[in-house]
Amino acid sequence: MEGVGGDLQRLRQLNSLAGLHALRGSPPLTLAELARRTGLSRASTNEVMADLMDRGWVAEVPPAPGAMGRPARRYRFRSDAGYVLGLDIGVDKVRAAITDLNGEVIAGGRTAVGAETPRQERLDAVDRAIAACLAMSNVPVADIWAITVGTVGVVDLEGRVTTVYAIADWAGVDLAGHLGRTFGQPVLVANDSKLAALAEQRLGVAREVRDLVYLHAGRRPGAAMIVDGKLHRGFSGASGEVGLLDAVRWIHMAEHLERCPGFAGHPPDQIAGLVFEAARVGDPAALDAVGRYVADLAIGAAALILTLDPELVVLGGGFSRSGDVLLQPLRRALEPLCLRMPEIRLSSLGEDSVVLGAACLAIDHVNRLLLSADDPLLALAAPGAVT
Amino acid sequence: MEGVGGDLQRLRQLNSLAGLHALRGSPPLTLAELARRTGLSRASTNEVMADLMDRGWVAEVPPAPGAMGRPARRYRFRSDAGYVLGLDIGVDKVRAAITDLNGEVIAGGRTAVGAETPRQERLDAVDRAIAACLAMSNVPVADIWAITVGTVGVVDLEGRVTTVYAIADWAGVDLAGHLGRTFGQPVLVANDSKLAALAEQRLGVAREVRDLVYLHAGRRPGAAMIVDGKLHRGFSGASGEVGLLDAVRWIHMAEHLERCPGFAGHPPDQIAGLVFEAARVGDPAALDAVGRYVADLAIGAAALILTLDPELVVLGGGFSRSGDVLLQPLRRALEPLCLRMPEIRLSSLGEDSVVLGAACLAIDHVNRLLLSADDPLLALAAPGAVT
Repeated sequence: MEGVGGDLQRLRQLNSLAGLHALRGSPPLTLAELARRTGLSRASTNEVMADLMDRGWVAEVPPAPGAMGRPARRYRFRSDAGYVLGLDIGVDKVRAAITDLNGEVIAGGRTAVGAETPRQERLDAVDRAIAACLAMSNVPVADIWAITVGTVGVVDLEGRVTTVYAIADWAGVDLAGHLGRTFGQPVLVANDSKLAALAEQRLGVAREVRDLVYLHAGRRPGAAMIVDGKLHRGFSGASGEVGLLDAVRWIHMAEHLERCPGFAGHPPDQIAGLVFEAARVGDPAALDAVGRYVADLAIGAAALILTLDPELVVLGGGFSRSGDVLLQPLRRALEPLCLRMPEIRLSSLGEDSVVLGAACLAIDHVNRLLLSADDPLLALAAPGAVT
Repeated sequence: MEGVGGDLQRLRQLNSLAGLHALRGSPPLTLAELARRTGLSRASTNEVMADLMDRGWVAEVPPAPGAMGRPARRYRFRSDAGYVLGLDIGVDKVRAAITDLNGEVIAGGRTAVGAETPRQERLDAVDRAIAACLAMSNVPVADIWAITVGTVGVVDLEGRVTTVYAIADWAGVDLAGHLGRTFGQPVLVANDSKLAALAEQRLGVAREVRDLVYLHAGRRPGAAMIVDGKLHRGFSGASGEVGLLDAVRWIHMAEHLERCPGFAGHPPDQIAGLVFEAARVGDPAALDAVGRYVADLAIGAAALILTLDPELVVLGGGFSRSGDVLLQPLRRALEPLCLRMPEIRLSSLGEDSVVLGAACLAIDHVNRLLLSADDPLLALAAPGAVT
């Protein structure tokens, strides 16, 4: 019994969708411009905009200042029609951020954990960070349309955390299942360095760059890559793991810093920062330790550079806060190893890179729903039902 | 004074182009099918096909056998409307092949050179191989629409040979300039391993594979990669050079074979083959030498695999003729180094892979001309004028 009524309703949905696509990522448009872009008649375009305003997707904007005669009405996509949640679950901290559909941060929070924090406590910290963000933002859970989690470890394309060296009990954790208790919305899971690379390309120092390597310089380094404009995840999601090769010497390289003479007795997670501070003011033992750390970092970086020949290397991760101490030695160590030296830039997003990359991936997911789902308007109007 | 006459002529050209695109890469089509695909009227489609047959681009095919009633005429793209030339300039041989626009080899030839062959003599050998192919194929120079050269060494995106370790006087050779004395057609230059990777993806063991690493196992190994379905050349064309890293141990790895006890006195370029033969029948010294060669090959291969996480590794290059001796030891050496073992397949194109990849790249270039040039019909009708 769907017949003509069902067809008409479907046609209206498709028209609304066309109107929505025309406005997404565009400056405000007039009815005439919208009619041209969608191929709809002016009357249909008018109906579509009224429908989209009713649903909360579209808003009218005031006429352009100084316009002559009777100014044409203009419409814009409401980037606050929905929100996404980005999470960063690291060894020593958990971060959360709620952004609008343009990636603007509405609320963000972080809480400290440690390498030895048991799985359940780490998940509790995640829940606390989310609750704090929701409370600060005043965004109801139902208005969060997609959730992306960045986590340490290798994450397969189905979002399973398969291999983790930095946190003993983290492999196999069911993040989508855990978050599914709070959210009915889709939960995506990805490796943290990959999300940081994505954030640098979308929002950070690598905008307009199509081929880049992201180096996470920290106690346990990591890497990720953008190839031909796209995040390269690999056939099983395990790209960027060249640091696992013994010949690359990444696995134990933080020990150069942690065993630096003169710093014994400090907590291991603080020594690196202290060594960088000492190196900055010329302490010879600290400079030597930094040099050995950088020499090992450069071998893995050179393997990535010689393999991919990227335009740019972005140096991020916790140690990139001491980028002033690291950058020149890294350049000097890389030059003799590389066929062509790429440009090296310090991350501009710093500690926010993973949550911001997570938000970018969640927004991509919302866009895909908008652009390809059978019935995205319905799906997104009731996000709890999206699977 | 171009006015209406010029416009009409341009419209006819655009219609012909639409007809050509519809047939390129398609089975034979009837007039009705062509009209539907091009959006032209049946009468215009008829005119267009007559024009394309006059120009030699299109041929009529006999009606399908067993068709009832008056059978509809069908048309096909003439893959023999033009030809491309692929070249492979290696350390110890030069190869040439002429293929039609579907990549079918019409004529192929090879001639031996050596690592010590001076540049001019190597170029003379190239000219002899080309002349032999032209003579065998009976294809006039004017019917060769594009030329692609695969060469050892790093090749930048402008086709300049920038860095070569295997041939002393080869860096800086102007291959496009040299071939330009014989051909007015476009000459593309690329690294040989990259073309071999392309050939394996288009015509060989990697069809349908979107992410693969090609390993050239030879006296001087090389590598190339297809990422997300596309040949990844790198920002300066220098991707795949991870073997230059000392930690990867590729540079001297052939010495494991060449210094194998019991083979002294044989010419260096023949020892590897003899060692593989001896290993095949269980000679302990040869097995040991092969094991050490494979252990070093595996380090570079693991760096590529850990970086990219490809679906497939294709083992090609001169030594892949002894794939039966290499494949199992390589798998065993790689397994403990990799997070996820990709499938490993032996090249099915063997020594033809570089010339075939060169032909593929030349055909891509012809397709680009057909699909995007301002006036491709005119351009390709007088290929000498294409630049």
